[in-house]
This record gives sequence, C-alpha cells and structure tokens, in this order.
Amino acid sequence: MTSNDSLDQLARVLESRKGGDPESSYTARLLHKGSDAFLKKIGEEATELVMACKDADFGGDKSKIVSETADLWFHSMVALAHYGLSPQDVIAELDKRVGTSGLEEKASRKAKDREVSESKGVNP
Amino acid sequence: MTSNDSLDQLARVLESRKGGDPESSYTARLLHKGSDAFLKKIGEEATELVMACKDADFGGDKSKIVSETADLWFHSMVALAHYGLSPQDVIAELDKRVGTSGLEEKASRKAKDREVSESKGVNP
Amino acid sequence: MTSNDSLDQLARVLESRKGGDPESSYTARLLHKGSDAFLKKIGEEATELVMACKDADFGGDKSKIVSETADLWFHSMVALAHYGLSPQDVIAELDKRVGTSGLEEKASRKAKDREVSESKGVNP
Amino acid sequence: MTSNDSLDQLARVLESRKGGDPESSYTARLLHKGSDAFLKKIGEEATELVMACKDADFGGDKSKIVSETADLWFHSMVALAHYGLSPQDVIAELDKRVGTSGLEEKASRKAKDREVSESKGVNP
Repeated sequence: MTSNDSLDQLARVLESRKGGDPESSYTARLLHKGSDAFLKKIGEEATELVMACKDADFGGDKSKIVSETADLWFHSMVALAHYGLSPQDVIAELDKRVGTSGLEEKASRKAKDREVSESKGVNP
Repeated sequence: MTSNDSLDQLARVLESRKGGDPESSYTARLLHKGSDAFLKKIGEEATELVMACKDADFGGDKSKIVSETADLWFHSMVALAHYGLSPQDVIAELDKRVGTSGLEEKASRKAKDREVSESKGVNP
Repeated sequence: MTSNDSLDQLARVLESRKGGDPESSYTARLLHKGSDAFLKKIGEEATELVMACKDADFGGDKSKIVSETADLWFHSMVALAHYGLSPQDVIAELDKRVGTSGLEEKASRKAKDREVSESKGVNP
Repeated sequence: MTSNDSLDQLARVLESRKGGDPESSYTARLLHKGSDAFLKKIGEEATELVMACKDADFGGDKSKIVSETADLWFHSMVALAHYGLSPQDVIAELDKRVGTSGLEEKASRKAKDREVSESKGVNP
C-alpha cells in the first residue's frame, strides 16, 4: 500500500467521524468539541515531538520520534478534516514546492523577506 | 503521482542535503545548524498552523491551513532525515493504528491513563 | 527593585512602543506587524524554553532556562500590551489562585473535567 | 502586595511541593512525573494563549488572555522550581535587558545574526 492509500484511508476514517456520536470514538469526540480541542493537541504533540528529538540527541530511543510524528500528523489531519481539506491538498502543496525546489525556495524567500523587514531599524 | 512518490521524493531531496554546503540551500543550512534549528521551526510552524485555523474559524482563507500544514510536515520531515528516519516509518505507524482503529484506540488509552493518574488526589 | 517595579517598568516601556515608528525598536516593529508576529514568537519561545530544559536534563547550562523564560515572559507581555492588559492582571490572577490554592485547584478541576468528558466512550 | 511578593509566594508554594506526595496536589503530581510532564504543559499553555489572543482579535473575551498567561507563567514557574531556579532570576534578566533597552537590543541582535546567517546562499 502506498502512503497515498494510507493517508487517504485515514482521511476517510476521520471524515466518517464528523458528526458522529462524541462517545463513539476519540476522533468523533475531538471533532465534536470543536477546533480549540484539536488545535491544543497540535501544540502539545509538536512539543512532544521536540522533546522526543532532544531525547534522541542524548541517546534516547528514536522510535519515539516516529510515534510522536504520527501523533502530530494525525492531529493535523483531524484539523484538515474539520475544515473540509485533505492530505492530498498538503501533498500537492509539497509536490509543487519540491518539484521546483520551491519549498526550499519559498522558505528562503520568507527568510529573505524577514531580513528585509527586520534589517530596518534594529536600534531599540 | 501518489503521495508515496511525493513524500519519498521529498525525503530523498532532504537526504541529499545532509552534509551539503550550508550556503547551498535552506535545508542544508537547517541541517547544518543542528537539531535546535529545525526543532524551533517545528514549534513555530505548529503555532502558525493553529493561527491559520483560528483565522479560518472566523472566515479566513482555508488555503493558508494547507500551506502551514505543508510547512509543518516539511520541517518534521527534516527532523526525520536528521535522525535517519523516513516518512514511510510514520506512514507505517499510522497504518498500524488506523488498520485496527489503533491510533484512536491508543489516543483513548493515553487519555484513559491520564484519567487514572490524575484522578488520584486532585486536592491541592 | 521589586519585580512589581520591574514588570511594571517593562510594561510601561512596551506601552510606549505602541504606535511608534516600526523602525525605531524591536518591540515597536513587533507591535506594528500585528498579533500574528508576536503570537508566532510565543510559540517559538515556548519551544526554545522546552529545549533549554531538556538540555538541562542532560547536564546543560541552566542559565539558558532563565534567558528563555525571560524571552517567553517578554513576548507574552508584548501580547498583554497589545490587548490593553497588564502584567498586574496576570499577577492578580495568580494571587487569587495561590491565595486559595486555587490555581492548583483550578488545574485539577480542568483535569477532572477532562476525565469526565473523556471517560465516556473510549472505544473508537 | 507587590508582584515581587506574589511571585515569591507562588515560588515558595511550588518549592514546598517538591518531593511531596504526588497524590496531594496538582503541582506535586506534575513535579513527581518529571520534566516531560510540565514541559508538555508549557507547549500546551502557549498554544492556548495564542488561541485566546486570536479569539480576542475577532472580538472574544480578553479575560481569557489573562488566565491563559497565568497558566503559562505558572507552568514555567513549575519548571523553574524543578531546576532550582526562581522567578527572581527571570526578573533580574528582564531588568538587565530593560535597564539598557537590552532585551530589545538583544532580540534585535538575534534577528540581525539570523539575517547574516540566512542571507548567505538563499538559492536552494
């Protein structure tokens, strides 16, 4: 199974949870609570991923990085489902960027913009 | 192109940046700086995703959610590359969980564990 | 100088930056850019604090925790200034909670609420 | 009571929770669980503060910003206690910076450094 199939399958499961009985599953409950509930989780899971990576820096188990990344991607997919978006939208965006080295270019452009805006008047 | 191809292709690009001239690309520079540099970005991009979602809650453009999710996934893939891991490891983890409703089950289990550990002694 | 003076003094400096020439200081520029600019910094500084603490867990320099906390408090005070709030509002809130062991009680209550809401229907 | 007194009093309460029965209070439990427990909370509370600010941007209640900032400062003070540091260390750092416009200067310097390091080689 390709990751395309995997992400699509997960997206379909998440989609099916929308409007479902909040007592029937974790995702249904999260979606029922509304955006603050899963957005908070995105912040929390990002922090847990950072912690798992720092642990690995000091010899910790790298498999934790995998499971924390899965948690982060899962909760960002819950957000996508809530807003009627799909992982394929994200993949398409990544494709566009990578195809033309665009993501890196874009990231650099953002850094460049920041330089321009921040280079003015650095005196307090 | 399937997302399998897309994520794999991006992973190969990121892999090729390892040890490269830090002045040659955004990713090479990020990897050269070490883990703190891209971990900080994960925290920042997660926050930007949360902000884009809140904007959408109040009528804002949903396409920003897509680009912020792409940024978040991109930087978490930089982390995966740094630690010798791949998006397929994450996809496999998601597969395992989804296949058995496991992610939701696991998430629920974590919530349940928290209940157990937190239900004791809630008096300050 | 008491921290009352310190936080108040910093709050007055931040207040004086509102509407100022964005090229005249870092804070004036941050406030001029609007909420997304300093909110992104709050996410970033929180992540940097987490990283500094993990470093300390493995023997790193604890003074970095102090400077990252200062950065986090500084940027949250920029937010307070933007919304017409003051550090004294936060201190008053902490007082109320501590005076009655309330913060701990409140935190526990939130945990308890979560238990109640999450204990229903943990099956996916 | 000055905020100095307030923060000191809270710091003393937190200090007294160290090594205490994890079932006796929220803070004792958090400290007993170790750094990952309260670091995760810092990431979560920072995210909740960002969400409260975004809500206020769209007309939401500003008092939520105060309580979320209190939660964030509280949990960062739990971290300070864990590492044997105090809010006065943070206040002293803020004093040093504000006294000489230093924090703003330092923040600008960091931005400037980033410009220098990022301005090289923005081509992917």
